[in-house]
Amino acid sequence: MTSTYCVTLEDVQEAERRISGLIHKTPILTSSSLDALAGRKLFFKCELLQKTGSFKIRGALNAVHKLPADQPIAVVTHSSGNHGQALALAARMRGIPAHIVVPRNAASCKKAAIRGYSAQIVECEPTDQSRADVAAQTVDKTGGILVHPNQDPAVIAGQGTIGLEVLQQVPEVQAVVVPVGGGGMLAGIAVAVKAIKPKVKIFAAEPLNADDCYRSKMNGTLTPNLSPPNTIADSVKTSIGPNTWPVIRDLVDDVFVVTEEEIKAATLLVWERMKLLIEPTAGLGLATVLSSRFQEAASDLKNICVVLCGGNLDLGSADWVWKQV
Amino acid sequence: MTSTYCVTLEDVQEAERRISGLIHKTPILTSSSLDALAGRKLFFKCELLQKTGSFKIRGALNAVHKLPADQPIAVVTHSSGNHGQALALAARMRGIPAHIVVPRNAASCKKAAIRGYSAQIVECEPTDQSRADVAAQTVDKTGGILVHPNQDPAVIAGQGTIGLEVLQQVPEVQAVVVPVGGGGMLAGIAVAVKAIKPKVKIFAAEPLNADDCYRSKMNGTLTPNLSPPNTIADSVKTSIGPNTWPVIRDLVDDVFVVTEEEIKAATLLVWERMKLLIEPTAGLGLATVLSSRFQEAASDLKNICVVLCGGNLDLGSADWVWKQV
Repeated sequence: MTSTYCVTLEDVQEAERRISGLIHKTPILTSSSLDALAGRKLFFKCELLQKTGSFKIRGALNAVHKLPADQPIAVVTHSSGNHGQALALAARMRGIPAHIVVPRNAASCKKAAIRGYSAQIVECEPTDQSRADVAAQTVDKTGGILVHPNQDPAVIAGQGTIGLEVLQQVPEVQAVVVPVGGGGMLAGIAVAVKAIKPKVKIFAAEPLNADDCYRSKMNGTLTPNLSPPNTIADSVKTSIGPNTWPVIRDLVDDVFVVTEEEIKAATLLVWERMKLLIEPTAGLGLATVLSSRFQEAASDLKNICVVLCGGNLDLGSADWVWKQV
Repeated sequence: MTSTYCVTLEDVQEAERRISGLIHKTPILTSSSLDALAGRKLFFKCELLQKTGSFKIRGALNAVHKLPADQPIAVVTHSSGNHGQALALAARMRGIPAHIVVPRNAASCKKAAIRGYSAQIVECEPTDQSRADVAAQTVDKTGGILVHPNQDPAVIAGQGTIGLEVLQQVPEVQAVVVPVGGGGMLAGIAVAVKAIKPKVKIFAAEPLNADDCYRSKMNGTLTPNLSPPNTIADSVKTSIGPNTWPVIRDLVDDVFVVTEEEIKAATLLVWERMKLLIEPTAGLGLATVLSSRFQEAASDLKNICVVLCGGNLDLGSADWVWKQV
């Protein structure tokens, strides 16, 4: 059976043509000391060095630039994090307003970053229901178009451009390890990589405390988190959704879960050994590669790409670091 | 009058041939938000992403590999910081022992890093006299060769390879801003860049609290710091010396001094906007470019390379960050 997904390789390639002049082609960096710890060669795809400090600008730009020239009045989304900032900048780059729905208790630095990109902030209550309701009202009121952070096909195709770059930058790659929240980046990369090099493994890295992707794969059916997860990897608290799940079900080879302690330790290793100020969510990949389960399951894979997805860390609340060092 | 310096362009080019396969060719990264703050285009040469976390491996490798094949029994230096680590790794890469003289009160993480590169630590008292004495004794005892952190010509030539890479990576560069301590990196870059593109400006960036290079240029004569300077930019507490001074005197266009607060603010800007975990010494360049004196003096220069020299930060003692954010 051949499944049909919401995104194809051609969509990802089209996204690459659309956004490549507008984003950084982020470098692949390596570290011999982390290679020694992992017992294999690691290639770190540095999306923390991307514009807005995360990969999210890829999907946001693709979505905003895919809108027909005569149509868009504004774009709307609900995200206080990396997607909110990315959509704000993407809209400004195209010269249209962005309305970003943000829980009223979101960190003030996040609101400041969104305002810094000239977007309007619309406050909501800190619940999923309120976010969705207020976003719908904002769409009604502004005539804007909702750009979902991870289920919008144009967003998924945009994130998939990471996969195209990895294949080009690391021809010897045998596996790509990708953090998973809503699954937009994971699904986009999986579609692109599996279409071009089916033998390259795609692995998801997920916090044990937010393991909906892992449980969905185990159960064979979409199984969202029932309550808001508590994890330091705050960019992947969202569950995978109806558009990303079929891709993840069919094209992702395995999902690895890691503990909060493993995430913290891996994050700090990247800080200390690579001098890259990743956010804890970006520590998921290295935490996975260093975990004993991965070491057993993937012992034959020598060249592994780890996606460092972002660096938007609230330094003022990173006091856990001081307890580690 | 044509002066003769301890290092020529040919020495730097020879160093490049010798070490290029052994080091990272570090990327140039850019940031549109920092460009906006500086009012010009900044190109950051990311030596914090170099092996051992600083540019020092360039000079150490050149010095160690330049030793005749039959001669070296061991290498010796006095440096608890980046040069000590770099020489330790360079010696290990050539398969000879390294003896690193370290003040007994040096941070334990620095000693651990040196031991991690398989070098011998020799403790001394925390004074310049004791460092020099113990280093001389160690040379006597081991038959090793002393590799000075910043006055050894092979070290200066090795650091100069940064200049060759910058000219190649940023053909439009009009000025290079380089932190100065002992002046090895500054002199090496100045020799290389001025020989190839004499119109490119070379600027030194120095803490006001350790301003021997600035005062030497003002006085027209080598004027070392009289007492150990107190600055957060702890990798540039050393004064420039007899081998680097003539180059700096003749080939460096200007020296800019910055305050401790300017260094801290610039360091934090690089952390937050670029996600690069530089050490405060590497904040000197951006602090300089953002200072009002530089803005006035260099208003016609649009494309400026800032060398981010290292990222070897003791996170456990970086509590000043928490007072800034």
